[in-house]
Amino acid sequence: MKVEIISVGTELLLGNIVNTNGAYLADKCALLGFTNYYQTVVGDNFERLLKTLEIASERSDILLLTGGLGPTQDDLTKEVVAAFLRKELVLHEESKNQIIQIFQRRNREITDNNWKQAMMIKDSIVVDNPNGTAPGLICKKENIHIILMPGPPSEMIPMFEERIIPYLKQLTDGIIYSKTIKLCGIGESQAEIMILDLLEKQSNPTIAPYAKTSEVHFRLTAKAKNEEEAELLLKPFVKEFQKRFHSFIYTIEESVTLEEEVLRLLRSKNKRLLAVESCTGGMLSAKLVGVEGASDVFYGSMVTYANQAKEQFLMIDSDLLKEKGAVSKEVAYALAENACKISGCEVSISITGIAGPTGGTKEKPVGLVYMACCIDHKVEVVTFQFTGNRNRIRENAVANALIFLRTCLLKSELKS
Amino acid sequence: MKVEIISVGTELLLGNIVNTNGAYLADKCALLGFTNYYQTVVGDNFERLLKTLEIASERSDILLLTGGLGPTQDDLTKEVVAAFLRKELVLHEESKNQIIQIFQRRNREITDNNWKQAMMIKDSIVVDNPNGTAPGLICKKENIHIILMPGPPSEMIPMFEERIIPYLKQLTDGIIYSKTIKLCGIGESQAEIMILDLLEKQSNPTIAPYAKTSEVHFRLTAKAKNEEEAELLLKPFVKEFQKRFHSFIYTIEESVTLEEEVLRLLRSKNKRLLAVESCTGGMLSAKLVGVEGASDVFYGSMVTYANQAKEQFLMIDSDLLKEKGAVSKEVAYALAENACKISGCEVSISITGIAGPTGGTKEKPVGLVYMACCIDHKVEVVTFQFTGNRNRIRENAVANALIFLRTCLLKSELKS
Repeated sequence: MKVEIISVGTELLLGNIVNTNGAYLADKCALLGFTNYYQTVVGDNFERLLKTLEIASERSDILLLTGGLGPTQDDLTKEVVAAFLRKELVLHEESKNQIIQIFQRRNREITDNNWKQAMMIKDSIVVDNPNGTAPGLICKKENIHIILMPGPPSEMIPMFEERIIPYLKQLTDGIIYSKTIKLCGIGESQAEIMILDLLEKQSNPTIAPYAKTSEVHFRLTAKAKNEEEAELLLKPFVKEFQKRFHSFIYTIEESVTLEEEVLRLLRSKNKRLLAVESCTGGMLSAKLVGVEGASDVFYGSMVTYANQAKEQFLMIDSDLLKEKGAVSKEVAYALAENACKISGCEVSISITGIAGPTGGTKEKPVGLVYMACCIDHKVEVVTFQFTGNRNRIRENAVANALIFLRTCLLKSELKS
Repeated sequence: MKVEIISVGTELLLGNIVNTNGAYLADKCALLGFTNYYQTVVGDNFERLLKTLEIASERSDILLLTGGLGPTQDDLTKEVVAAFLRKELVLHEESKNQIIQIFQRRNREITDNNWKQAMMIKDSIVVDNPNGTAPGLICKKENIHIILMPGPPSEMIPMFEERIIPYLKQLTDGIIYSKTIKLCGIGESQAEIMILDLLEKQSNPTIAPYAKTSEVHFRLTAKAKNEEEAELLLKPFVKEFQKRFHSFIYTIEESVTLEEEVLRLLRSKNKRLLAVESCTGGMLSAKLVGVEGASDVFYGSMVTYANQAKEQFLMIDSDLLKEKGAVSKEVAYALAENACKISGCEVSISITGIAGPTGGTKEKPVGLVYMACCIDHKVEVVTFQFTGNRNRIRENAVANALIFLRTCLLKSELKS
């Protein structure tokens, strides 16, 4: 069955917010076995939303709409869908009561515009929204399923997972099953050339390469009757990838990220990590803490942004800072070495660089980043020259810090 | 003129990546005075992309395409646009040479699939891509302008800013001019009710409310002949907003973020900040370091994720940790107080909470976050109860930490 994702909101057309809902729903639909050929963004405008519903209903079986259910004047998704279905809007008592409860809990006054959110399309299924004031709706027009969800991801995602997925599962037979093979330390086109023969003759499973910051992922997708059959289809391909890419592959688990893999390696070696961040300013640390349960091996991070903080917290000699500069191999080395000494952690990584846009010189241009990794008193230093804007340079630095940590941890495994 | 944004890529339809290009281009087009009614995502598929071009060219004047220019087999945007225009693809020598140079610089082998990127649509303008291997293209079909750009934002954005904007500026007269009024510490519907009269009679400028994490922004947009005329239209509205919202407004500058405003306040008071983060794990710090030149007032952050790190780096009494727990008012207080003592900074903020999904108890549920702010030896503690998943709780904590810092800094201003 074909699903079409329609995101409603003038704020999307004005570029005020990024359409993360589109990516989220597309990902979930692919895993449910639905095909997604089109995603549309349209404003809070009666005629254009109606036109969009007409086009979509001619080429898709399920329309997933997000946004435009809120209390403000410009929210009119329900009104347009009602017109499309030729149904009227009626007051829904339960929703009204729920709105009262939510406002009481938040200790906020109910403004009149909120009652609009209790009006529902006749003959539709009303879907609770425990995380907000706008309920969702499931409607049907002949064989087309039209599903309305609120726009804020914090409301839409739980509603989709708890209420919409069970509804959608009834509509499909057969499954699409994916495995993602994740590589680091290799470029996209180089990786692709190594499996060109597989790409050329692909049918079931299909192979889709895509590049993330300093990573390459291949998603293998099989269509099958059930999970077991899909696994059988995928298995020989996964083996072939492992044969060709060896240790470039850091995981074949969809849900495992590079930071999780680094934490797993630390855990398997029973080592704790302290990070020292300068230009990345806590981004590496935030990534690691994003993994639940990181605290057993992730000790913490010293974000020594000011030079004085480097001296004070990591005993960096002020003469060294003056002579070599905060962005230097020597300071990177000393930061990593002292981090282990001071904390007693077995592993440390330091990152110091010039994120720009200003602050670069001919000798030390913007994008220059030094990193040092200390494991069991042995320190290794690497140099990177990244390109792009401040944020891009910092993101690249974090991604490569994780790759560097993985490489050093794998090496230390071999030695010990 | 109407612009339509078409993002090409099966990875978008599979939900592997988020369509940030759509938001970026929409935002820029709005500022250039173009109207954007539709954004479409379509896969790397010949027929469906062709169909999309047909629909779009009937309702829009400028089609902005991103993606599908890469070296891999499934990239076929150029081929489809050529078919749509009934033009052939020809080898472009300059692009060929540039590809050679880029690979030499990266010290990587040129694989055969890269030459595809030197084939260009006849009679089109080839647009250099200094940040990647795929050049852009500008083509025309009667009065429709079709612009092809690479998909990776790090390549697309500089190309758009340096080469496409000058081209688009020739096509328009009159401007659209926006001002964003940014509020914190107030909910969206409550803020809206306070200006309902203005919303109801809006015409030029228009007023669009939208909610960010713990912030509300109002974008006022005026259509005018030139910037001066637009400023005149906007001025009385900005004054009216300032009258109604007072200190809920933290800025009326489009480009100023809450973290920048906090840094500005610190600078104006000549105070340095040290952060102590537990559940946010460096996210607050990363936000502050995201602002260039933060190092004059942002000293750094101690991400004391493990309890032992709290004891070691911030002298938190192990009995206190045992008795009250790491997530407690008392520990938040001590972390902030000791941060100032140890570093000599005048301001500190500590964040400690339960980000979940596990680790919550009846007394201390998931989402409970304590923060303490110390300014000139005086400590204030606040308690939050956030909802949502781990990431949502952490994002909310960071946003509210900035609001808390702002409030405390403003109060200290009044006193001194």
